[in-house]
Parts: sequence; C-alpha cells; structure tokens
Amino acid sequence: MKLSQLVGQRLKEAPRDAQTASHIFLIRGGYVRLVSAGLYTLLPLGRRITRKIEQILREEMDRVDGQEIRMPVVLPAELWEESGRYAKVGSELLRFKDRNGKDMLLGMTHEEAVVQVARTELVSYKQLPSMLYQIQTKYRDEARPRAGLIRVREFTMKDAYSFHGSQDCLEKYYERCHEAYVRIFKRIGLKQCLSILSDSGMMGGAVSHEFMAIADCGEDTIFASPDGSYRANREVAVAKLAFAKDAPLPLNKVHTPGCKTIADVAAFLKLSPAQTCKAVFYKDQDNKLVFVCIRGDLEVNEAKLRKAIQCPEIDFANDELIRAAGTVPGFASLLGIDAKKIRVVVDPSVSESSNLVVGANEEDHHMLNFNFARDAAGREHIMITDIATVREGDPCPLTGQPLQALKGIEVGNIFQLGTKYSAPMACNYLDQDGKSKPMIMGCYGIGVGRAMAAVIEQCHDDYGPVWPMAIAPFQVHLIGLNINQPEVRQACDNLYQSLLDAGIDALYDDRGEKAGFAFADADLIGVPLRLVVSPKTLAQSQVEFKQRNWGKRSELIALDGVLPFVQQQIQELMALCRPDTPTA
Amino acid sequence: MKLSQLVGQRLKEAPRDAQTASHIFLIRGGYVRLVSAGLYTLLPLGRRITRKIEQILREEMDRVDGQEIRMPVVLPAELWEESGRYAKVGSELLRFKDRNGKDMLLGMTHEEAVVQVARTELVSYKQLPSMLYQIQTKYRDEARPRAGLIRVREFTMKDAYSFHGSQDCLEKYYERCHEAYVRIFKRIGLKQCLSILSDSGMMGGAVSHEFMAIADCGEDTIFASPDGSYRANREVAVAKLAFAKDAPLPLNKVHTPGCKTIADVAAFLKLSPAQTCKAVFYKDQDNKLVFVCIRGDLEVNEAKLRKAIQCPEIDFANDELIRAAGTVPGFASLLGIDAKKIRVVVDPSVSESSNLVVGANEEDHHMLNFNFARDAAGREHIMITDIATVREGDPCPLTGQPLQALKGIEVGNIFQLGTKYSAPMACNYLDQDGKSKPMIMGCYGIGVGRAMAAVIEQCHDDYGPVWPMAIAPFQVHLIGLNINQPEVRQACDNLYQSLLDAGIDALYDDRGEKAGFAFADADLIGVPLRLVVSPKTLAQSQVEFKQRNWGKRSELIALDGVLPFVQQQIQELMALCRPDTPTA
Repeated sequence: MKLSQLVGQRLKEAPRDAQTASHIFLIRGGYVRLVSAGLYTLLPLGRRITRKIEQILREEMDRVDGQEIRMPVVLPAELWEESGRYAKVGSELLRFKDRNGKDMLLGMTHEEAVVQVARTELVSYKQLPSMLYQIQTKYRDEARPRAGLIRVREFTMKDAYSFHGSQDCLEKYYERCHEAYVRIFKRIGLKQCLSILSDSGMMGGAVSHEFMAIADCGEDTIFASPDGSYRANREVAVAKLAFAKDAPLPLNKVHTPGCKTIADVAAFLKLSPAQTCKAVFYKDQDNKLVFVCIRGDLEVNEAKLRKAIQCPEIDFANDELIRAAGTVPGFASLLGIDAKKIRVVVDPSVSESSNLVVGANEEDHHMLNFNFARDAAGREHIMITDIATVREGDPCPLTGQPLQALKGIEVGNIFQLGTKYSAPMACNYLDQDGKSKPMIMGCYGIGVGRAMAAVIEQCHDDYGPVWPMAIAPFQVHLIGLNINQPEVRQACDNLYQSLLDAGIDALYDDRGEKAGFAFADADLIGVPLRLVVSPKTLAQSQVEFKQRNWGKRSELIALDGVLPFVQQQIQELMALCRPDTPTA
Repeated sequence: MKLSQLVGQRLKEAPRDAQTASHIFLIRGGYVRLVSAGLYTLLPLGRRITRKIEQILREEMDRVDGQEIRMPVVLPAELWEESGRYAKVGSELLRFKDRNGKDMLLGMTHEEAVVQVARTELVSYKQLPSMLYQIQTKYRDEARPRAGLIRVREFTMKDAYSFHGSQDCLEKYYERCHEAYVRIFKRIGLKQCLSILSDSGMMGGAVSHEFMAIADCGEDTIFASPDGSYRANREVAVAKLAFAKDAPLPLNKVHTPGCKTIADVAAFLKLSPAQTCKAVFYKDQDNKLVFVCIRGDLEVNEAKLRKAIQCPEIDFANDELIRAAGTVPGFASLLGIDAKKIRVVVDPSVSESSNLVVGANEEDHHMLNFNFARDAAGREHIMITDIATVREGDPCPLTGQPLQALKGIEVGNIFQLGTKYSAPMACNYLDQDGKSKPMIMGCYGIGVGRAMAAVIEQCHDDYGPVWPMAIAPFQVHLIGLNINQPEVRQACDNLYQSLLDAGIDALYDDRGEKAGFAFADADLIGVPLRLVVSPKTLAQSQVEFKQRNWGKRSELIALDGVLPFVQQQIQELMALCRPDTPTA
C-alpha cells in the first residue's frame, strides 16, 4: 500500500487524557479514532493488526479442537434470567426494550447463549468434550472507560466455551487451553505475559487464571514469588505471615484518650501496629452490618471479603449503624459484639496472634492482651477466613520468599465454570448409562483490541510502537527520499513492485516528504523493517536498511540483494514470535 | 473434521413457520439456530460458509482499493442527529440510553460513522478517491423478521463507503463497484443475480442499484425486458403505456346508481377499466389529503407516490377527510377539486388519455369524456408524474417489449449518495485551488447471511443445499459404511488423512450409521463431492464417488487414484464460480 493513500492521519499531539503509551500511539499513529466515550473506530492500520491477531486466535482455537460459531450481540433477557445473571449483574449490562417491548440486552459475555446451543446440539457423552468459540463484538456499559483500548465499552472478543462429561476432563482440557493461551500471547509478540490465579468474580466457578501482560500502566496488581512458582492477582493473593505466639497474658484495660486509629493507639502505647487489632465495619446490600477484624498493620481486601460473605456489593458502615450494634466507633472490638446477632469475619492474623491490643468498647479505652481463642465470645458463630491484602515483601505462601508486586494488563482469562450455568439452565447430556447429567463447563476469553494495546505497552520507544513481525500492519516500510528525482522514483517503484511480487506486505512512502518527517511517520507506524532509498544510496546501488528497534543504527545493503535479505529478516523476526522460542 | 464431532444436529422436521428452502435447510441441516425472533446463532457449518463469503468480500473490496476498518455497533445519537436521520428513521432504528443517560443507538448502517472518520482523516483532494469498508454486525429492529436469514434483526454486513472529489469520479468508481459486485455474486455461486435500478429509499441519493438473486420466495418484484436491457424494482419500474388519443367529446353526466368502484362503473357502462379514471385519496404524515388520479386499470405505486411528494409515510384517507375536501367518496374526480387547496397528483395515464369516465362528484353519477387538458381546473397546481404500478406484460420503456415479472432476494445494493451526508455533516476536503468542498459519496452493501440463504434458494434439491465449491462448508464428504469392520475403518482413516495432508477440507462420517441415514445427512450438509467406502467397494480397491447434484448417479474410482481425481474435481467446480466463467 502507498502511504499517500493510507487512511489515518498521523498526529503530533495526543489527546490530553491519553496517559499510557498505547493510548497515545494508537491515536497519534492513526490506528484508532474515538467515536464516543469507550467507543472506537479501528482505522486501516488498527484493523490490519487486529485481523492478524484474530487469525492467530483462530489457529490456536482450532488446534485445541474448537469449532467457530457466531452468536448474536443482542440477546433476549429471558436467557439471562435462566442463569440468574439478569438480576445479579449491575448496570454494566446494557438492558433495553425492543420495538415490541421485549426485554433485551447487549451481550458482554456469552455463557447463556452458548448453553442454549449446547443443550440442544450436544446430547450424548459421545459428543463430549466439545468446544465452541467465536470472535465477536461485546458491549459492557463501563462507567469510566479509560486508557484508549485498555478499558472500552464495545470491544471484539474471542470467547470460547468447553463442555465436558467430568471434572477430570475439564481440568485436562483447561490445561490444554492454558498452553494455547501461552502460545497465543507469545505469537502476538508479548514479551512478558504471566498466568496468575485470579478471582472468578461474576463468572463464578472454582479455578480461574488471568493472563497478565506486565506493564507499568496496568490496572491490576500481581504478587509473584521471585522463582515464579506463585503468582496471584491482588484480589486473591495470600501471604504466609508469621503471627505472634506468646503465652496469653491477662486482659488489661488501659486509658487511651482520643486514640481512634491504629496509628494513634500504637504510638500512644509504644507498640507496633502489628501488635494491635483493627475493627472495620461494612454494610452489605441489605444494609446489614458486617464486622471485620484484622491485625492492625494489615488492610482488608474487599474482593476477598465480598467472596467470603458471598455479597457482590459492600460499603463502609456509618457510625449510626455501628452504634446500633452496641459498639463504640474508634474503640470497638470483638469484646463488645454479640456474634450471634451480627455477621463477624475475622482474619487469621487476629485469630492466631497472641496478646493483641483491641478496643475496649468504651470511649477512650483499649484492652491489652486480647487472645481470640480465650476472649472472643460466641466464637462458633464467627467466620475465620483470610481477608487480608497482601503487601510487597510479604512471604510467599509456597516458598516463604518475599513476594514481588507487578503491574499488569489482563489480556486473557480462563475459568473452570463447573455446572454454574449448565445446572440452572438444564444443559444436560446422557452419560454411558443413559443418565441425564449437567455438563461441566470451562470458558476462555481474550480481548482483541486490548491485546493490541498491551503489545504497544511492552513494545515501544519514545517515538512509537515497535510491532512484532507477526502482527505488524506491514512487514516492510519503504521510504523514497527526494522521490521527485525520476531515478529515485523509478528505483522505489521497482523495489516496491518486487516486494509485492514476492508476497511481502510493504508500505511505500511515495509522498516525497522530507527525511525527518517521513521517519517520524515511520516510527509511529512501527513497521519492523525499514528500507530507505535516496539519491545518495542509489549512487552506490545501495539501500539503507534498519530494524524499527535499532534506534539510530542502520546498514547499507546492495540493491540487487534486497529481496532475499528482507525475506531472511522477516523469517528471523517471525521466529521471535514462535511459541517454541524461549522468551528473552 | 469428523462428523461425529461436528456441533449441530441434523433435524428431520423444519419448524412450522419455515416456508422457504433456505429457512428449512438452514435449520434442518444444523447451520443456524434461532435465539429469539430475528436473532440467530451461526453453528459451525453456517460459520464456515459465512467465513468463506467474507473472505471473497474482502478480496473483492481490496481489488477496488478498499481499506478495511471497523466501526462500532453502538453509536451516539448525536452523530445521527447531524445527518438528520435520528428523527427521520422509524422504529427499526433501535434507540436506547446508556448508564449515563446519553442517547445511543444500534447501527443499522454506518454512513454517519464513516463520515465522522472521513472528515478528520481525508483532508486534501490528493487523498481522494478513497474507499473504506467493514464486515460487521448490524441491528435493525424489524417488526416482522421472517424466512430464516432472509429478514432478520441482527446480521453481518459488508458495508463500504467511497469518497470523491467529483460526481464524475464517483460515477466511474460506482461502475467499478458494480463490476466487483457482479464478480462477488458469481464467486459465491449465485446462478442468477441481476442488478436492477432501485429506489434509494431512506439512504437518499440519486442513482442506486439492487442486486437481486432470482428466487420464487423473493420479497421483491423485478420487471425486466426479455433482452435484459431494462430491469427495475417494482418500486421504480416504469412502462411505456399507450394512451387513447381520440378527439375530445363533450362532457356528459350519466346516472350510475351504486357504481362506487371502477369495476362497477365499467361493467355498468360497458366500457373497459382503461376507459375510466380512478380517484384515490391518501393522507400524509400531517394528516393532509393527497388526491391521486390514475387510469382505472392501473394501480397506484405508493413507493413512487411517496418519493414524488417527498413524504416518507402515507396512508389511505378516511371518508371524513375526503368529504371535508368537498368531494363525494365513490364518485370523486378532478371535476370537484380545488387544486389550489388540495395536493393533487395525476398520473400521465390520466393527463394524456382522452375521453375518460370520471366521477361527477355527485352521488350515483359519473361524467363521460373527461379530458385533462380541457377539463381539469387549476392544472398549473397539479403535479403530473408517473405513479403507476407496472404490470407483467406492460411495454418496456426502452424496447417496448412486454416486461417480465421476476421474484428476487435483494442480496446487495449500491448507492450514489452524492452530498446527502457530507454536506450536513461538514465532511469537506480542500480542492486543488484550496477551496473547501463537500465530498461526493457512494455506498455499497452486502448482507452475508442473506447471501448464504440466497445461494440455498438457487442451489438446492428436495434433500438439501447443493453448495457451490467456493463457499461449501467442506470440499469433500467421506462416508465409511460398515465402518466397524476394521479394514473399512482403516481404509477410511487412511483416505481421510491423505485428503487432509493434501490440504483438502474433508468431512469424515466415521459414525458407522446405516447408508440411508448417512446419505440423508450428507444431502443436508450439501458438500459438493462425496466419497463412499464400503466393504463392497474395498473388495474391488475402489471408492464410490458422486457430485452432490448428480442425484442417484455415481461412479466407481480406483482407491489409489482418489487424490488426484478429487483435486481435479475441486478445480473444475471452483472454475464454475470464477467471475470470468460465463453463466449457464
């Protein structure tokens, strides 16, 4: 393609709200354009890249025996009512009525729709396992779209769903999909993409993994052991903390005037926050109090808490609600709580530590030497579960080594759903004994546009993206300098034609712009290989060659050897994206 | 792929509402499944076919210098307000509010969205002409979805938009697109697809063509001259009717008791309906009367009428409205009308005919010998324009030969839009003199699913589709009979593998079903080439071969020559879909 014809202006400036490399370069390079908040048009450059990503997705899904289908974007609400999600999912699910007044929605994920297929088309154990996938438009009515293609409202997703006759079969297939995902992210050119344990959130199910492209701009925090044996999303990460195990001392009330925070009381008593117990009050969806105790140096992980109490939305309780429970804000503790009447959740950092400072449930007083096993009344009604937020440096639960914190962009996720959808929706099959059983399901998603953006986050310099060969919009960028000189034009035209004839996807800058301008455009377009023809190189029957990531370095190569040289370079760069190539 | 693993049951019965071959076979063959009215899931068979169609569309769009983009399905209402269509288009445009209360819609076509791209990305005449296209999901909230994939609510469409600096450039490019469309429909295997003049309807613009796949179940009626020189949709077709040109006789009132219809009055007066004038009363959107006169044997073509009076919605007027205009229902005519006060439209069949019978505007009376040029008061206020519905056998406007009526399915359309969108939306470019001018636009659409359905309508027998090789879900269907015999299984497995190794897309029926059952499935799947291995053929080292459209005929071919034979067959059948092959 000739650059003069390529639709999509390069821009000098990024929009003010663009903070991340991918957002900046996707706009500046003419890959995408904003239509409305969270809605983008992919321009030809962006569409070329996403089509290559989609092709890789198809190949890898076909490799794991997937069959491509296409479900509608617009779905009837009744399907989601069957699974119970119509009521459960919040306003990110876009609901509307059609012209006949029927409740409809825009699919943000397609478990219900695919179950509708499976329950009619998969009848016998002989047809299992089976996997269906699609590459299709999704809509999620995000309150705050951000960061270009990282968090949008409408997006293209590869979503895949597997159906099994046993948990064992699911687990084996899940492992195959995990491997396929590792291959995919390698093939699209991500340099560092980690699979981590994750919270399955609104999808439900037991085991799930996220694939995180490591990038400073990532929204997600990952805790990883240095040897890589443990990796988990902040929402589910656990640490193997050491707890004080001293002999219990007698409870002892002390005067702690005005000490309403952990910092206050620790400073006043000359103790560390880890020697105290923090009381945190939440309210659930029904406005009922949830009393949470955690060691004073730790923070409550609300994702863990929501999951523990199976409540999708929680918020802090106000003083009124706290007082109504018979406690004193700022000085509350388990000592003043009737665990039969109030929901209490205690982190092991409290239940397993000795001699903590707790509130005395009395204005301006605390108690020394609280020991849960001795002092907590109604212990049998209290839920003890890990609800602590992991901190960088906390010991890894597997190895004890200090955990590292990384930032990542979630580019894919896989879930073992079990029978969460198949059971309520009667998605059954007949087993070998002719008995009807619900299918065991898995699901597997990758956002195409976000994957493209994540590649930029990992592969760019100050001037633009450095596209991996496998998904680059073009393979070779040919620039003619002083192209209004007929011999340059002729040499460029010939070279361009010979590249095309050799099946090489070439972009040809035939505009006759000045070198600096042409190179800046080339940097923004980020094609991996660049050829520059100028009167100077032509005089030597040469072409200047450089790889996009060589910075200022370049090489001169003989004009008559360009074609085999470029073909060799393409092969070498493609090899970097081969799934069997070890990551640098 | 093994048939035992293919997701999508074959069904013995079609749903009760399925009347057309495509609807029946798409369901019975397991190509698609209904999700909700007008919403379908494409199962693997259907998706395989649509992907092949999409690939052909891409190739042909790229051939006419198209650049692929992807615009959102969900669009902000403000874009459609700019063009004025947000208010104009009816309830087939699905409107909703997002979570922030902003007015949004589901795109049913993307002129506004692509103009938003063009007006920022195309700046100079140097960038024109330019064409952008996408293959993407559309939603149209049809009141009455019908006939399977023929009329749905959600569908995949290839929509393309071209931008030009002059009408001349548009017209030349329009011609190229017309040729591309002819190629496309040939390549996907349609046997008879005619391009016809059409009404541009809500799209606006001057010239437009529809591509009609000829099929008895088609919703559209086409009038064509026997030599093909004239073809037009019923909505715009014209005929070169002969009108009586006798010397005017004096007006003469006659008593016609109870003769309220043309049939009554013609019978009573022993004249033919063509010797009478019919008065038809409509009301426009503002409930204002529109009085229409047409020769008694002709029918008003409401599409023409709507276009003539530039009123998107009309309906019959009630007697009250008719009487309020001072006329007598059943006996009304131009003789009783004040054309200054009432909108009057007269067909040339009335204005150019002599001595017609018209209503006397008096109960139970008509007038003989009405002559428009003599008797119509206020003629200068009357619009005279063709609003007649063409009938089969009417003379062709070009050749005078009797027009034939054909039924067709609209599988594509192309429009010369002119500046209908670019002018109101300020989609301008700078011409060679640095002047800002609105771009001249064209647009070009093809529905992918409907194209697939149209192919079935033209290519099927009583037992299922007969897929053209170019879009067939598989190239070869291999059936093993008595496959539980180890030597049959082995021979089939070997043959299947050798087909795959040769790059042939083969479906392998490895289920061991009885011949009749297996053949019925094969007919429904419609793969163009079929190989059957059985103990009987194996004993002769042979394979039974047939083409899908051979009926009961088959051939025996040597097992060791199958591969080159099949490759040859594939080439021959592909050649039938080559755009340079003359249509049978």
